[in-house]
Amino acid sequence: MTVKRRPGGRSARVRAAVLTATLGELGAVGYAQLSLEGIARRAGVNRTTVYRRWGTREALLLDAMLTRADEVVPVPDTGSLREDLVQLARAAVANASSPEVEPLVRTVIAELPHNPALRDASLRFWGERMSLDGAIVERAIARGDVPADTHSRSVIEAVLGPLHMRLLVSGTPPDEAAIERVVDLVVAAVTR
Amino acid sequence: MTVKRRPGGRSARVRAAVLTATLGELGAVGYAQLSLEGIARRAGVNRTTVYRRWGTREALLLDAMLTRADEVVPVPDTGSLREDLVQLARAAVANASSPEVEPLVRTVIAELPHNPALRDASLRFWGERMSLDGAIVERAIARGDVPADTHSRSVIEAVLGPLHMRLLVSGTPPDEAAIERVVDLVVAAVTR
Repeated sequence: MTVKRRPGGRSARVRAAVLTATLGELGAVGYAQLSLEGIARRAGVNRTTVYRRWGTREALLLDAMLTRADEVVPVPDTGSLREDLVQLARAAVANASSPEVEPLVRTVIAELPHNPALRDASLRFWGERMSLDGAIVERAIARGDVPADTHSRSVIEAVLGPLHMRLLVSGTPPDEAAIERVVDLVVAAVTR
Repeated sequence: MTVKRRPGGRSARVRAAVLTATLGELGAVGYAQLSLEGIARRAGVNRTTVYRRWGTREALLLDAMLTRADEVVPVPDTGSLREDLVQLARAAVANASSPEVEPLVRTVIAELPHNPALRDASLRFWGERMSLDGAIVERAIARGDVPADTHSRSVIEAVLGPLHMRLLVSGTPPDEAAIERVVDLVVAAVTR
């Protein structure tokens, strides 16, 4: 008896293998040497599959980053603005300082002025994440915990900006005390 | 009649020429190719002068960045916390997005994990600037505008972090509205 597999099953496995291989290959060879061919080889899939599905390495990087962020930086919903922001900040710092992601973040920042496709991917990544994370603020508005005109993207940037800056500049992830200090300042600003 | 020059005069001119040449040479050849020899040539000074005074390109970069920041990002003292922070943020964004500095910032972020001397220079640069900029908060405390236990470095990082993050991620300097929104959020947090 043969096990019948849904077509979605194989396709999803190929996709997951390619996205994992993308971050692995970038870490191994660096951005200058990154190619769809090398990624396909690392993933053990046919080169044309990768070309047909993603087309460019920038499209592939964007998909890899968004998928990873979805998995490891979920948007919390604890019923408390402060607790949601602390959990978000902790997961975002852990992700940005992980061996799979930190080299990518640093490379994107360095290459961005010379590569419009990468700049576009970077903008779309942050736009998408800010919009997802903004749900934290919108739920706080709905609960009446913060004023209705609170600018949700500014709140998320006010939390993640200083923490990413610290990580990038020092090479050391901000600790729990730094995370809580940043969140407390932002919560104080919006719950007055 | 000969004009008598103070020894400090010539030394100060050499120093200024070398620091300007450092940023120019970095922009021209990139960090991988940056050498004290190339910088000395560009500045029109003797190579041994540069070696004796700075020793390493990282020490020279640190001096060049701190000196430039002193010149173009003065610490404002207007008597108003909000106005001081807006002026600081505007000048810091203009400096970080200038053709002399933006490539350096991006390069440092990319190279930092592989170069302990550069990481040390980056930490010293931000430590020094945060401490200078912190005077803005300390004066607000002295005026009684904010509580005495306000953490000055957190306030400065809360303003500059989101703005630098935006610039690095988008390649576009934040506009005046974005600057004021960030400052207003921080001022609301500390003047409650």
